[in-house]
Amino acid sequence: MHAAAPVPTTAAPDLVRRTADLLEALRARAPLVQCVTNTVVQNVTANVLLALGASPAMVDVRTEAGPFARVADGLLVNTGTPHEEARDAAVEAATAATDAGTPWVLDPVAVGALPVRTALARELLALRPTVLRGNASEVLALLDGAAGGRGTDATADADDARSVARASVGRHVGAIAVSGPVDLLVTPDGTVVRVANGTEVLTRITGGGCALGAAVAAFASVAADAGEAAVAATVVHTLAAELAARDAGGPGTFQPVFLDRLATLTPDDVVRGARVATEASDGDR
Amino acid sequence: MHAAAPVPTTAAPDLVRRTADLLEALRARAPLVQCVTNTVVQNVTANVLLALGASPAMVDVRTEAGPFARVADGLLVNTGTPHEEARDAAVEAATAATDAGTPWVLDPVAVGALPVRTALARELLALRPTVLRGNASEVLALLDGAAGGRGTDATADADDARSVARASVGRHVGAIAVSGPVDLLVTPDGTVVRVANGTEVLTRITGGGCALGAAVAAFASVAADAGEAAVAATVVHTLAAELAARDAGGPGTFQPVFLDRLATLTPDDVVRGARVATEASDGDR
Amino acid sequence: MHAAAPVPTTAAPDLVRRTADLLEALRARAPLVQCVTNTVVQNVTANVLLALGASPAMVDVRTEAGPFARVADGLLVNTGTPHEEARDAAVEAATAATDAGTPWVLDPVAVGALPVRTALARELLALRPTVLRGNASEVLALLDGAAGGRGTDATADADDARSVARASVGRHVGAIAVSGPVDLLVTPDGTVVRVANGTEVLTRITGGGCALGAAVAAFASVAADAGEAAVAATVVHTLAAELAARDAGGPGTFQPVFLDRLATLTPDDVVRGARVATEASDGDR
Repeated sequence: MHAAAPVPTTAAPDLVRRTADLLEALRARAPLVQCVTNTVVQNVTANVLLALGASPAMVDVRTEAGPFARVADGLLVNTGTPHEEARDAAVEAATAATDAGTPWVLDPVAVGALPVRTALARELLALRPTVLRGNASEVLALLDGAAGGRGTDATADADDARSVARASVGRHVGAIAVSGPVDLLVTPDGTVVRVANGTEVLTRITGGGCALGAAVAAFASVAADAGEAAVAATVVHTLAAELAARDAGGPGTFQPVFLDRLATLTPDDVVRGARVATEASDGDR
Repeated sequence: MHAAAPVPTTAAPDLVRRTADLLEALRARAPLVQCVTNTVVQNVTANVLLALGASPAMVDVRTEAGPFARVADGLLVNTGTPHEEARDAAVEAATAATDAGTPWVLDPVAVGALPVRTALARELLALRPTVLRGNASEVLALLDGAAGGRGTDATADADDARSVARASVGRHVGAIAVSGPVDLLVTPDGTVVRVANGTEVLTRITGGGCALGAAVAAFASVAADAGEAAVAATVVHTLAAELAARDAGGPGTFQPVFLDRLATLTPDDVVRGARVATEASDGDR
Repeated sequence: MHAAAPVPTTAAPDLVRRTADLLEALRARAPLVQCVTNTVVQNVTANVLLALGASPAMVDVRTEAGPFARVADGLLVNTGTPHEEARDAAVEAATAATDAGTPWVLDPVAVGALPVRTALARELLALRPTVLRGNASEVLALLDGAAGGRGTDATADADDARSVARASVGRHVGAIAVSGPVDLLVTPDGTVVRVANGTEVLTRITGGGCALGAAVAAFASVAADAGEAAVAATVVHTLAAELAARDAGGPGTFQPVFLDRLATLTPDDVVRGARVATEASDGDR
C-alpha cells in the first residue's frame, strides 16, 4: 500500500461554522450515548462524553445492550477487549441500532492480525455502521483485508487509507474517520476532509482515539448526516487536545487539562482554532 | 411521583461532630473494603478508598467473592456493568456478608428499565443490605417498582424518594442514601437527614456516586449503625468535592484535586464545612 | 517468618549506569508490551507504558492472547481480577511466551488466601516466568506456601522474602522483585540488590505496583537478562515516583505528575538520583 499523491485542498469555513453550531446543539440536547467499549478506556470515554455535555451509558451486557441501543441517541462499538459477553453485546447493540435508526460508530481497535476482533469487526461492518473510525492500519485491515498494524499503533499513514475509504462510503458505512497527524475524513458523498488540529501527546496516552469514537456517536445524534458528525467530533476533540497540550507538562497532566478544555471549549474557540480543508470530490482520484 | 412538600429542618451539630470522629476512626482502622463494582469506575473507586485511608480489594470473582466478604470490614455491591461472572460474585458476596455480619452497601446503578441489573438488584435487596445508595430514580425503581431513569442520570428529585425511603428502612435495608443537589438520607429510626454539601462538578465526572457507595462501606466498618455510616460518608465525600471544586478548572482537574482533598481533609474541616440538617421524625409525613 | 538480619551492602554504580542506558534503549525500541492484567489498573498500566516509551497492548482474550505473546516484545501477567476468560488468556499467553522466548513477568496480586488466583499463580509459576514481581506477602505465599496478606497490602517485609527468593531464582524464575519501602531484587546469579528510591504516596494509589510489573516486561525486551530488567524498571519507576511526589499535593495530583516524570526522566536523572546497592552473593546467608 503506497501513500497517495498529495491532493490540493481548500479551507472549509462552512464545516467549521457547522461544527461550532453542532457543539452548541450537542450541549443543549445532552445526548444519551451508549458505549460497548474496551475495559481499558471505559473511564476516560465516559469522562470525555460528560465533559462534552453528553450522557454516557456503558451498557454492555447481553439482553440489555440491544434494547438500550433502541432508545439511546448514539452508540459506540469498540473492539478493544472483545471478551465473549462483550462480543455478544456488541452485535446485539449494533443490530438494534441499525434497525431502530440509532446512529452508531464502529471503532475496530487492533483489527488485522488478531482473529477474534477481526471476525467481530467484519460481522459488525456488515451491519452498516453510521461511521467507521480508526487509524489507517485498522481501516485498511477491515475494508481491504490488509494485514493491519501491531496493535493500536498505526503503521500505515492516513493517506494510505484514502482510496479504500472513498470506495467504501455508501457501500459499507456512512462516513469514515481515519486518525493520524492530520485526520482524514470521508463524508457520505465522497468528499475528503482533512483536519489538521491535534497534538502528538494524544499518541502518548491510552484512549485518545477510543474516546473520539464516542464523541462521533454523540455528535451523530445532532448532526444532519454521518459526515458532519465525524468532522465536528474530530475538530472538537483534536482542537481541545491541541489547546490542552499547551498547558500540560506531559502525558499525565495533559489528561485532566484536556477534559477541562473539552468542557469549556466555546463555539468561538472552534471558529478561531479549527484547521479544516476539503479536497474536491472528483471521482476515484 | 410528585415531590414532597418542603419539610422544616434543624442543623445537626451532633451528626457533624460524629462524622469528624468517624473520619479519624476510619483512618486509624484502615478498613479492608471489598468492591464488586462496575468496570468503568473500579480505578477511581479504589483511589477514593485509598485517599480516605481505607484499603480497597476488588475481589469480584466466583468462589473468591463470598469467602472474602466474610473477612472484609465492609462490602460494596454495584450493579453498573453486571456481566455474568460479576453477577454471581455480587450475590455470593452479599449472601456471605449478610451471614457473617459484614456491613454492605447496595448501589443499584441504572436500575429500572434495564432487565438484567434490575433483577439482580431485587435479588440483592432481598439479602437486606446495610445501606442502599443511589440517585432518586434508582431508589424509586428498586423500592417502588417505578420505571427508573435513563441511566445514571437522576430524572427524579431526591425528595421524590423520601416517603418510599422512609417506608423501606427497617423492612428492606438499614439506611438509605439518596444522592442529589442536596443528599437525602434516611437513618434506621426513620430520621431524614439532609446534607447540602457538594458541587455540580460531581455530575460531570463518572464514578462520583459509585465511589461514594464504597465510602459508605468504609465508614460502616467503624460506625455504630447504618445511618451514621451513610451520613459520615456523604458529608466527607461531598465536602471534599466542594472544596476541591474551588481549586479545579473543570471536571478533569477536579478529579486529582478531589483525591488530594479526601486524603488531607481534617476533622476540623468537617466541623467547619459540613452542612447537615435533620427533619423531625414524625410518622409518615 | 522472621526478618533476616541486616546485611552489609555496597553502592552499585554499574547497575545505575546500565539502567540509564537501558532507559535510552527502551525509548529507541518502543517495545510492544502485552498485558493480561486486572481491570482495575488497565488504564494506568497502559499510560505508564506509554509514558515510558513502550507500546502497550491489552490483549487478554482467548485465542488472541497466545499468538500475540509470540510476537510481543514482553508480556505481563497479573492475577488481580482473575475472571474465567482472563485466566485462560493468562495461561495461554504465558505458555506461548515461554515457548517463543518472549520475556514475561508474573505479578501474583493478592495470592495466598484467595483460592482462584492462588491456583492460577501456581500454574503460571510452573511455566517459569522471566521475572516474578510482588510484595513480600505475595512472593512468600507463592514460593513458600505462606498464608499471604489480606489483599494487595504487604503484611510481610521485603526482607522476609529474601531467603525464599534467593532459593527460587534459577529454579522457578529468572529474577525476583519484591516491592517495599526499600525494594529487594534477586538477580539470576543470586545477587541481592536493594533500591531505596520511591515514595510513600505509591502506597496511596491503586496500580503503582501493577504498573511496575509492566515496566519490568518493557525493560526485559532490551535488557541482557532478567536481573537487569528488574533493576532498571524498579529504579526508573520508583525514582520517577519520588521526584513526582515532591511536586504533588497528594495521591490525586501525584498520578498525572508521575506520568509526566516518567516521560521526561533522563539518563542523567537516573545517574544522579538512583539509590542502588548490592549485597555480596555469599551462599545461603
